[in-house]
Amino acid sequence: MDVSHLFSGVLSGNRRHLAKSITLIESKKETDKTKASELLTMIMPYTGKSIRIGISGVPGAGKSTFIEALGKFIISKGHKVAVLAVDPSSQISGGSILGDKTRMEELTKEENAFIRPSPSGDSLGGVARKTREAMLLCEAAGYDYILVETVGVGQSEISVANMVDLFTLIQLPNAGDELQGMKRGIMEMADIILINKSEAENRSKAEIAKKQIEFALHLTISKNELWNCEVMLVSALTGYGIKEYVEKIEDFINKMKASGIFYDKRGEQNISWMWSHIMDTMKDNFISNNRVKGVLKEFQEKVREGKINPTIAGEELLKCFYSSIK
Amino acid sequence: MDVSHLFSGVLSGNRRHLAKSITLIESKKETDKTKASELLTMIMPYTGKSIRIGISGVPGAGKSTFIEALGKFIISKGHKVAVLAVDPSSQISGGSILGDKTRMEELTKEENAFIRPSPSGDSLGGVARKTREAMLLCEAAGYDYILVETVGVGQSEISVANMVDLFTLIQLPNAGDELQGMKRGIMEMADIILINKSEAENRSKAEIAKKQIEFALHLTISKNELWNCEVMLVSALTGYGIKEYVEKIEDFINKMKASGIFYDKRGEQNISWMWSHIMDTMKDNFISNNRVKGVLKEFQEKVREGKINPTIAGEELLKCFYSSIK
Repeated sequence: MDVSHLFSGVLSGNRRHLAKSITLIESKKETDKTKASELLTMIMPYTGKSIRIGISGVPGAGKSTFIEALGKFIISKGHKVAVLAVDPSSQISGGSILGDKTRMEELTKEENAFIRPSPSGDSLGGVARKTREAMLLCEAAGYDYILVETVGVGQSEISVANMVDLFTLIQLPNAGDELQGMKRGIMEMADIILINKSEAENRSKAEIAKKQIEFALHLTISKNELWNCEVMLVSALTGYGIKEYVEKIEDFINKMKASGIFYDKRGEQNISWMWSHIMDTMKDNFISNNRVKGVLKEFQEKVREGKINPTIAGEELLKCFYSSIK
Repeated sequence: MDVSHLFSGVLSGNRRHLAKSITLIESKKETDKTKASELLTMIMPYTGKSIRIGISGVPGAGKSTFIEALGKFIISKGHKVAVLAVDPSSQISGGSILGDKTRMEELTKEENAFIRPSPSGDSLGGVARKTREAMLLCEAAGYDYILVETVGVGQSEISVANMVDLFTLIQLPNAGDELQGMKRGIMEMADIILINKSEAENRSKAEIAKKQIEFALHLTISKNELWNCEVMLVSALTGYGIKEYVEKIEDFINKMKASGIFYDKRGEQNISWMWSHIMDTMKDNFISNNRVKGVLKEFQEKVREGKINPTIAGEELLKCFYSSIK
């Protein structure tokens, strides 16, 4: 299918064309890469109009069920919802933690929903780049809410927090518990923390968890002077709190837009995306360079054992690299 | 002064030679850089034997006074102490947050102490590299405790945490207070948290702060499965708790050495130092490349405004760079 055909398909909101376009940007074939660049250039003027929301939480927190309930609610308000996933486990372990997106059976049936599993890739950087580009394609196709799901167990939250307008963390009503299993530092990136599974019978436990989390947040400075992280109770099962969560999202977005922070942040995200791409590419070029490859292992071992100064080892490797591309 | 002269001076523990050697590695002159490389290569076999401790805290937490008291205690036990500083504010604002190291008047008088202020540099990466190299020189000069001081207000803590064996955060006895001013995520890097200014009259406030911090830590997973962050009360003024802190350091180091984590961590730190140097250098080369310089600003603005896809802008800039060095 040629690029202009895909382009008009995406713009008209055709889900099949959108899916094919995302497959194109995920492709590693050189001819596809050229086509993908063309397509991305063509859609740029039609991007940027959605609200981009990151959603993370440990396995078992009920992310998928929650996203399904949230997606249906947003659609019922007249919006279009795209769900993308960043799951580096899918290429590291061979198995995906987030699992098969088709679990979201009800949301899949909605005409105004588009669901796409995590792209495969060699690195988190690659997965993140593809997800960002998929996000732009979804925007061009008219999706005005983009939900980016990720698992709360590693570096992927930082990537996702850096590509969205608002980052949400899903917790369970047992905050003090070791099972909460949230890595340090991840809670600190959240704009909103949801305590899921807050059905009536868990409500008092959930209220305690809310107070504990609020207290822990209070010990540290907010990352945003116009917004203190909000802790809210929800239930994906009963729909409890979902309306309030969506209102809080709107409140956040309105405040950020009014202050200009919204646009500044997107601008900064774009710049840092460009630099990540440049530096990731240079590192790839460096590592796959034949002359570097020939000596890298030896240098790394000497550096690890403290037999050579790391700066000096770095200088030697840089000489190998630059001399071979001249 | 020639390199072999500096080398033997450093090895014999001569403080004047040590100071000159650090000045050499901080120099930007090309001839000095060659000499610095030679010197660093020569000292490598004599490095690695110290305990490297990072100490951070907000301005006003009493870091310098505490380090002075700590240094004197360690010296009284028959050790040699070097104090280095990482203070990126010294080149960003022109003024240094950590201020004049000569404030440590009593420690300066000790024969077994060596105190060096933060090097100047264009970037935190540069400052960190120089501090790492200064640390190696101090080790070669027989300093067996290296204290690296930094301010708890930015990225410098991450740099310091990545160059030491144990990271300590100094807090005040008003944990719940906004004045605590600690950026989110920094508390999470600490192996030991000290509540300073815990003199008798502040003891009950300090005990409450300790409990609050312990509770907040409990909500997150420890970064090290063999060690839970310890919260301890100290007073730089009266010396309260300093002996116990040093014993805790020894306990930590012994546990980490016994498990092998100590050596693994140092190996990993060396590797990541090498890679930081490679990537920082490549980024410097990239930014200062004339062909890139000519178009970078324009591309950055277009990227910021969402007029060009960041990946595509990155590709174009990479083409400029590589074509000009061929």
